[in-house]
Amino acid sequence: MRRLDASATGVYLITVTPFTDDGALDLASTDRMVDFCLEAGVSGLTVLGIMGEATKLTAEESRVFVKQVLARVAGRVPVVVGASAPGFAPMRELTESVMAMGASGVMVAPPSTVRTDDQIVAYFDMVHETLGKDVPWVLQDHPVSTGVQMSTAVVLRILKNSPTCVMLKHEDCPGLAKLSAIRAASERGDLARVSILTGNGGGLFLPEELTRGADGAMTGFAYPEMMVEVCRAHAAGNIERSHDIFDAYLPLARYEQQAGIGLAVRKHLLAARGVIASAAIRKPGPRLSALDIADIARLTTRQNRRLAEIA
Amino acid sequence: MRRLDASATGVYLITVTPFTDDGALDLASTDRMVDFCLEAGVSGLTVLGIMGEATKLTAEESRVFVKQVLARVAGRVPVVVGASAPGFAPMRELTESVMAMGASGVMVAPPSTVRTDDQIVAYFDMVHETLGKDVPWVLQDHPVSTGVQMSTAVVLRILKNSPTCVMLKHEDCPGLAKLSAIRAASERGDLARVSILTGNGGGLFLPEELTRGADGAMTGFAYPEMMVEVCRAHAAGNIERSHDIFDAYLPLARYEQQAGIGLAVRKHLLAARGVIASAAIRKPGPRLSALDIADIARLTTRQNRRLAEIA
Amino acid sequence: MRRLDASATGVYLITVTPFTDDGALDLASTDRMVDFCLEAGVSGLTVLGIMGEATKLTAEESRVFVKQVLARVAGRVPVVVGASAPGFAPMRELTESVMAMGASGVMVAPPSTVRTDDQIVAYFDMVHETLGKDVPWVLQDHPVSTGVQMSTAVVLRILKNSPTCVMLKHEDCPGLAKLSAIRAASERGDLARVSILTGNGGGLFLPEELTRGADGAMTGFAYPEMMVEVCRAHAAGNIERSHDIFDAYLPLARYEQQAGIGLAVRKHLLAARGVIASAAIRKPGPRLSALDIADIARLTTRQNRRLAEIA
Amino acid sequence: MRRLDASATGVYLITVTPFTDDGALDLASTDRMVDFCLEAGVSGLTVLGIMGEATKLTAEESRVFVKQVLARVAGRVPVVVGASAPGFAPMRELTESVMAMGASGVMVAPPSTVRTDDQIVAYFDMVHETLGKDVPWVLQDHPVSTGVQMSTAVVLRILKNSPTCVMLKHEDCPGLAKLSAIRAASERGDLARVSILTGNGGGLFLPEELTRGADGAMTGFAYPEMMVEVCRAHAAGNIERSHDIFDAYLPLARYEQQAGIGLAVRKHLLAARGVIASAAIRKPGPRLSALDIADIARLTTRQNRRLAEIA
Repeated sequence: MRRLDASATGVYLITVTPFTDDGALDLASTDRMVDFCLEAGVSGLTVLGIMGEATKLTAEESRVFVKQVLARVAGRVPVVVGASAPGFAPMRELTESVMAMGASGVMVAPPSTVRTDDQIVAYFDMVHETLGKDVPWVLQDHPVSTGVQMSTAVVLRILKNSPTCVMLKHEDCPGLAKLSAIRAASERGDLARVSILTGNGGGLFLPEELTRGADGAMTGFAYPEMMVEVCRAHAAGNIERSHDIFDAYLPLARYEQQAGIGLAVRKHLLAARGVIASAAIRKPGPRLSALDIADIARLTTRQNRRLAEIA
Repeated sequence: MRRLDASATGVYLITVTPFTDDGALDLASTDRMVDFCLEAGVSGLTVLGIMGEATKLTAEESRVFVKQVLARVAGRVPVVVGASAPGFAPMRELTESVMAMGASGVMVAPPSTVRTDDQIVAYFDMVHETLGKDVPWVLQDHPVSTGVQMSTAVVLRILKNSPTCVMLKHEDCPGLAKLSAIRAASERGDLARVSILTGNGGGLFLPEELTRGADGAMTGFAYPEMMVEVCRAHAAGNIERSHDIFDAYLPLARYEQQAGIGLAVRKHLLAARGVIASAAIRKPGPRLSALDIADIARLTTRQNRRLAEIA
Repeated sequence: MRRLDASATGVYLITVTPFTDDGALDLASTDRMVDFCLEAGVSGLTVLGIMGEATKLTAEESRVFVKQVLARVAGRVPVVVGASAPGFAPMRELTESVMAMGASGVMVAPPSTVRTDDQIVAYFDMVHETLGKDVPWVLQDHPVSTGVQMSTAVVLRILKNSPTCVMLKHEDCPGLAKLSAIRAASERGDLARVSILTGNGGGLFLPEELTRGADGAMTGFAYPEMMVEVCRAHAAGNIERSHDIFDAYLPLARYEQQAGIGLAVRKHLLAARGVIASAAIRKPGPRLSALDIADIARLTTRQNRRLAEIA
Repeated sequence: MRRLDASATGVYLITVTPFTDDGALDLASTDRMVDFCLEAGVSGLTVLGIMGEATKLTAEESRVFVKQVLARVAGRVPVVVGASAPGFAPMRELTESVMAMGASGVMVAPPSTVRTDDQIVAYFDMVHETLGKDVPWVLQDHPVSTGVQMSTAVVLRILKNSPTCVMLKHEDCPGLAKLSAIRAASERGDLARVSILTGNGGGLFLPEELTRGADGAMTGFAYPEMMVEVCRAHAAGNIERSHDIFDAYLPLARYEQQAGIGLAVRKHLLAARGVIASAAIRKPGPRLSALDIADIARLTTRQNRRLAEIA
């Protein structure tokens, strides 16, 4: 088991949860997906996130899926498990279960019911108490899905109160100023440096976020190699190259990030790439039309052409 | 096991979930609470609702609690179990589990993500498919907690599509016109008559709702005997008497229905009445101040005085 | 002109805006309404609030209505004007216009777009700058209508930053703890004492709020004399009497506070009492059914009977 | 005056409202902006939209600005004016005023208070009644800003009920399926064909929307020539060319569409291009940091390079 720590960099891919056409967990596809991600060069995996259809799984299915992923990863990269829950008893139960299996840490987003600065900070104090001293965790800041707006000051208070919070999954929009301010706070010595991975709009601002000091990305995309290469080019100081790669994938990435049908696009692409056997999404979930699929085909063709041009 | 059906009337009390001071399930208090409700004359019980802190329980705790309630009730009244869930797999799992134990039916509210008429109807078509042909269910219409506004037309479409939906828990506000319209539809023969139990503001409109054709109440209050007596007086044709009883309890009922601290008030009163051993609420949850408790003491004293006057 | 100041106590009634049956401003009814309020013993009036259908008036109609009210009041009590606006230029324009006419101050609620503590405080700093040094103003804290949750700490920061904010219209729920905390802060000398008038649920917690240190009420009700008498009994130290009066009106007050149709109930009652000529509400707005009107008739009869009993 | 009708195609640019550095209306910049848009080849202009800071203007400023725009346009293209308002009296007043000045039509979005299908349809029936038989209007479907989700069925009902609604500003996301369905309805003869202009994410799906049958775009971007050229290439049957142009601008367009600071980016670019004298935004509004400006500079340089490559 590799525990998550604040030195994490690169791409932690938010994985999908593969199902068969009739909606059962597809463990063979799960193995292929893990292999695919590791071959693409990701630094870690994050499972049971929103895009992993976590809430559609039974508790037992969640355990089976996490176990399969951990077995296939076999310690090569850290695996983070989404543990957001409306109550602390289920959060503790899931956390203990997945940490015992070998997960590297958990990720928690605030519930939609907290609003004021003090309510948000108090909530994460309870999260810290629930997870205990030994579980590294990721603070997920994603107002679009949670409805919770955390100011920079609030994020800093949460990080100070919980030394086991080693990573921020930064998805606020506009978020570049916030990213700069949090990074500046650790550089001033106001708090210990944490890893900041970004996911804004599914990585749609990755080059700019890296320039602001992000350590990498934690988000999903059917082409994880894009994010890996953008991060590598940036780390090598080749900023223009990082933008060139990003721009080549941007038209399709934008299409995959459409609210509501994004997951269907992603699973369609992963199935088309041979990663998962079926693009099935559990109900309630979107389905692609023939016109959607034609859009994706055109964008994929164009992407391949553009990638060849800049190769 | 008594299956829930459309002939249900009277008071289905939404119960709390008793905890010990250190937050463990309190099964002895659970038994006392069941006895207390039955002695108060309720026609049924509803467990694992929002006010039952359902989301704060682990799956195993939920099963233990439901089992304890069912054992104590021993078939004397129907027991409905809250089964709202963000995904259908957990909804099916919980439903199968509690029905196998002897529950009489389940209750489902819409998720906050459905908005348009068609989205809401489609959601409940999937609920119907998930629950199957043999599980009677209650449609919970509570916009304040779900954010979902179901028009009368939508409620009627849901009821038509699912013959196993035998009860509407009506909590929309203002809701009297809606109640009248749904009742009128079944009287016109547009759809089979369902039971309509109301919970608007915690029963704060019960006398008026009975006049509009409601069959009773499904809500929580530390004095379930109030709702039982209001329903009985109304059923006996003694409308003014039903108001007299209601009005005597209204000042305290209003205080117990304050958003945010209502559950703490209710558990405080239940503990004060000797029903449950501890007023503990699992985190995150409100706590009463000394000033709150003084308010409650004054209101309780006044309520006793007024009840004596109208006895 | 009497300027609003922090010593304000008693009842500041939120008035309706009377229309004729065909939707025109009804200035004769406006005069009668002013007389009715003053005869009921109110300490002030608040016009162009949410329940005054402010957003349905043209800018010119707003000015005409305010002018009429001010002329009829003739300086006998302070008149506060709602000045919430999505932009500061219209807020400044309306404020300058009504202050020039003789208004005593303005009331401002936050826009639904501000969320974090700092965003809320920054917004009211801009309000302060917009209103200038000479305009006393009321901070309206009404999360149910604005969606903005202001913590006690935030309210205190706003009050410290703006010495011209002389009153808090307190409508948070649950709000008794917040009321106690704000009052305690001024008693500790942390900030200058402001007037706190409450409106929680349309005054549905008035006796308890007075006990916590509220200076009175700023809300609407077709029977303002209830709030005046509750405040007077409380000020005279007769707490039980204040509850007796309150409880006598509570069944009808509760009915008038139903979200969605409350204003229709209020205007119906004001028309029935001969205060306004028509119960008309501008579109979009609710209409009462025959069943609603029967409910109101029963409640009014019962209220009269109960008032006679406790006279 | 040219009245808006259902044959409208091409780009209707949502304009900004230029201010001087001290926040006054900048009429000289307004003239330059009109010239700039017409030179870029737009088919129409839309003023006083959300991105036009409409709510920050006084009623008089709104009239002055509209008058200036109309005078400069001098009938060369239609000008649509945003007329959404919380009440119908102000909506009627603004509409009559701008139509009398020579506007071609108005645009109306639903208020955030309507939720169910019937509520939305009823609202627009009242809009239709308010605008009268002679004012062509645009239905704005923008759930991100309004919170109102209109199903395809609801849009069709609104269009059927109001023959003067000649255009749909389509900004739902995901919205391609909806666009296809509405277009299909008029092709089947279910309703008269209306113009559909899109603005989804600020035009971030324009090539795909044109393929689905959109007639053009109604949105803002500091490079309106992009949208004009994309529409022209598409109309000429050169789909790949339309994508090439779009892709060249996409990295900057994406940056300009960031929620919260998008308008500041747009005004910065318009000022940099010499269109408006100042990038000032009225409070409350965002400001760009030096890092933001560096991002924009890099993206602009890259955009110029890419445009040269595909020229």
